[in-house]
Amino acid sequence: MGEFELIRRFFLRPPAAGVELGVGDDCAVLAPTPGARWLVSSDMLVEGRHFLSTVDPGRLGHKALAVNLSDLAACGATPRGFTLAMALPRVDEAWLAGFSAGLWALADASGCPLIGGDTTQGPLNLCITVFGEAPAGQALLRRGARPGDEVWVSGRLGDARLALEAFRGTVALEGRGFEAVRVAMECPTPRLALGQALRGIATAAIDVSDGLLGDLGHILAASGVGARVDVDALPRSAVLAAQPVELQRTCVLAGGDDYELVFTAPPGARLPDVGVALTRVGVIEVEPGLRVVDARGERVDHGLRSFDHFKP
Amino acid sequence: MGEFELIRRFFLRPPAAGVELGVGDDCAVLAPTPGARWLVSSDMLVEGRHFLSTVDPGRLGHKALAVNLSDLAACGATPRGFTLAMALPRVDEAWLAGFSAGLWALADASGCPLIGGDTTQGPLNLCITVFGEAPAGQALLRRGARPGDEVWVSGRLGDARLALEAFRGTVALEGRGFEAVRVAMECPTPRLALGQALRGIATAAIDVSDGLLGDLGHILAASGVGARVDVDALPRSAVLAAQPVELQRTCVLAGGDDYELVFTAPPGARLPDVGVALTRVGVIEVEPGLRVVDARGERVDHGLRSFDHFKP
Repeated sequence: MGEFELIRRFFLRPPAAGVELGVGDDCAVLAPTPGARWLVSSDMLVEGRHFLSTVDPGRLGHKALAVNLSDLAACGATPRGFTLAMALPRVDEAWLAGFSAGLWALADASGCPLIGGDTTQGPLNLCITVFGEAPAGQALLRRGARPGDEVWVSGRLGDARLALEAFRGTVALEGRGFEAVRVAMECPTPRLALGQALRGIATAAIDVSDGLLGDLGHILAASGVGARVDVDALPRSAVLAAQPVELQRTCVLAGGDDYELVFTAPPGARLPDVGVALTRVGVIEVEPGLRVVDARGERVDHGLRSFDHFKP
Repeated sequence: MGEFELIRRFFLRPPAAGVELGVGDDCAVLAPTPGARWLVSSDMLVEGRHFLSTVDPGRLGHKALAVNLSDLAACGATPRGFTLAMALPRVDEAWLAGFSAGLWALADASGCPLIGGDTTQGPLNLCITVFGEAPAGQALLRRGARPGDEVWVSGRLGDARLALEAFRGTVALEGRGFEAVRVAMECPTPRLALGQALRGIATAAIDVSDGLLGDLGHILAASGVGARVDVDALPRSAVLAAQPVELQRTCVLAGGDDYELVFTAPPGARLPDVGVALTRVGVIEVEPGLRVVDARGERVDHGLRSFDHFKP
């Protein structure tokens, strides 16, 4: 199967609503909504680094798009479309069928059509760029947190890291527990509805991809503030809560790959109910830095840091 | 040097005009021009496949952006910005300095700012997604060629392929000739001004990335027409014209990596003068298929085909 046949079989569909021209020309053509701002984000996933070579291709298709949609969610954007550029070692039809099925399922569920891309041969690499819209001045950014704002987290943190530790063999999990955290790692849910509902409410937002410490740290740095976070308040699954406390803290503070939203909002803000649990985990303070405390208010010396691709 | 320091040192600049928010948040934010359509294209470059590991990093930075801008040019779009996602085997500061300098130079010259991206570790892979604009209904597409239209080519074809053959050792070129075709391969010029000037004039357009036969073939297929092309009329450099005729034909018909525009326009159309040579090379016909003839009008049995990443 050649390059164009591959595209035709797995990645070509009639243009979706709002897409004037999709896959199959030099560029895709979209009509921006009058008055809206255009939001763009790009993520690259490398085999062995962002996913295991053994991962189910359908889940990988889901995740490759999900991590990008999560960036739109963090900015409160409504998805409009995405491009997929991929390097494949070879044409594996079964793999492509599974991968594209997982990708299309989330694209359809999110109203985010595939509009173009590139296919080439090389070490497995998936690069997705997403486009979304938000009304002018309403995109959620990292820089708006103010002292006194509360810090909130959606869903639960740490399961993806726990699953990774189980794959690494440093933790033993029984079957159902392992499957639950494995789904968290392999099939994250981008919080698109939450992000859009937080427009005009959240003062700052980011998605948790590298770990809460690092990602909340980006909000603090961009906003010129500090924060106090209660590690015991950080939401976690029953499976994670059954682990030793040090492992729990590593997973919720520095686990990464969560794709939940962490955001700040003034006390008493009317938070939206979009069917996702929201947990208040801390407060923004004037003093720079991120202070982690336990339920009794005692400082926790966690010694953890966020994930960095070029630091060991 | 960590991931964020790397971004700060080589890829971070204050937002350019028209970019509300650039590198450094979950998404970049741009304000579309009222009434314009949004055009998007994405290309992935893999070491050993799209470029040699020995290539000068500055030229590689130029080329990675140039091949994407060429897609905007083919659609007659005005550049608005691009994202860069890259996998690097390691942090090589000298390489990054050269690469980013070449990238920024072309970005500045093209009015196309870097607005975001991703950096990760892995086999060297560069994925750029470009965004541009064109007035509604004025983007140049592949599907508008009509019987009787003339087929035109910008610049010269085949030098990049000749350089590749020299690198492969199948052709011997003396120093200055080699340097000239090497520049064509490593530093292609995206025909942005030409593409924009062809709005409302060209009936169809594409850029020559996989070779004229294949790329013009896309216009013919999308437009439901055929064409007759005079291989002897295809523009070529003096260096290429000094090679054996069979090699010349391979290079101009199926060389690829040219990044010139091939477009169709009605006879007598007033073509723009933007300082790029334009050569009439053929005519669109009702009968499907692409017929290659020589200067005497005799059919040329070239036995060539376009480049395909998954066909040997």
